[in-house]
Amino acid sequence: MSPRPAVRPGGRSARVQESVHRAVRELQAEGAALTVPLVAARAGVTPSTVYRRWGDLQELLSDVAVERLRPEAPPADHGDLRADLEHWAVAFLEEMSSPPGRSYIRDTLAGDPDGSKAGQCSGFAHDQVESILNRAAERGEHVPDAETVMDHLVAPMIYRVLFRPGPLDAAFARRLVATLFYRLMPLP
Amino acid sequence: MSPRPAVRPGGRSARVQESVHRAVRELQAEGAALTVPLVAARAGVTPSTVYRRWGDLQELLSDVAVERLRPEAPPADHGDLRADLEHWAVAFLEEMSSPPGRSYIRDTLAGDPDGSKAGQCSGFAHDQVESILNRAAERGEHVPDAETVMDHLVAPMIYRVLFRPGPLDAAFARRLVATLFYRLMPLP
Repeated sequence: MSPRPAVRPGGRSARVQESVHRAVRELQAEGAALTVPLVAARAGVTPSTVYRRWGDLQELLSDVAVERLRPEAPPADHGDLRADLEHWAVAFLEEMSSPPGRSYIRDTLAGDPDGSKAGQCSGFAHDQVESILNRAAERGEHVPDAETVMDHLVAPMIYRVLFRPGPLDAAFARRLVATLFYRLMPLP
Repeated sequence: MSPRPAVRPGGRSARVQESVHRAVRELQAEGAALTVPLVAARAGVTPSTVYRRWGDLQELLSDVAVERLRPEAPPADHGDLRADLEHWAVAFLEEMSSPPGRSYIRDTLAGDPDGSKAGQCSGFAHDQVESILNRAAERGEHVPDAETVMDHLVAPMIYRVLFRPGPLDAAFARRLVATLFYRLMPLP
């Protein structure tokens, strides 16, 4: 992994990160062919600041992509586990299979030599799933474990997004949730 | 997708492909920092031949990675479906989670703007699975459908290889096969 100083919120390091990330997002929105000098100029920093902190353009793009994949809010509460999982899975599949979603996942993987950013991105899904399961357990519902949900709901969606190009619809996400409910629940 | 002439076996185009692929494999084995001019020099072609055919270095590496992921033989026949799936899954996981396996999958995705090479790579797994299932069906065994095997056996393995760095062992592959057998079989 490239050297990266710890980011203290509000410190210079955090301000550099924010302005460089914003420059990447703006240039991507404009459809520019990104280069480190171009990003640095837009962010008002020197190219060597970018190289020192991110190593190369791919690692920077990976960093930005992970931030865009970070969920903005906890999963909505629909009152029961199956509804919560269905709504979450349908929204997750829609986001990940959209053209920007696919490219954020690919960017994450492309500039991530040690797998830590892919791990972060999978951690986001894991945290969302855990919060749905914990809420259901508190309601007294019977719940599968988070690993089962990762392997049999999240994994099939992401595998298809990356490896089996083609339309992916909400029915596919709902069918996976139904499989979890009717086939993969632990015994009570 | 970059323009790519049809490859006629034995023709000039096939010879160029073979020598460029071989140059990449050799240079990778030597740990060289790959560039198009370096690959072209080793292959005895001009850099413009490489650019014309592959677009850029990433697409070339993706092309080479797909060929390395192509199975060399049909899955071994152990006499019954569960043994065949277990042996295949354990070997597949071992190959894909090895450092070269991980990097071939990443290279495939990195230089594959339209998803066709990822599709090819998933097609290899699908073909292997289908041949195991067809053989079992011919023996009169009860079999799951190939999509179920892709979603609940192949997808969880590849998802973990890419997104959840950490040790992946044969027991994980066998547990997924057991889940298929005890939970996900269609009714006879």
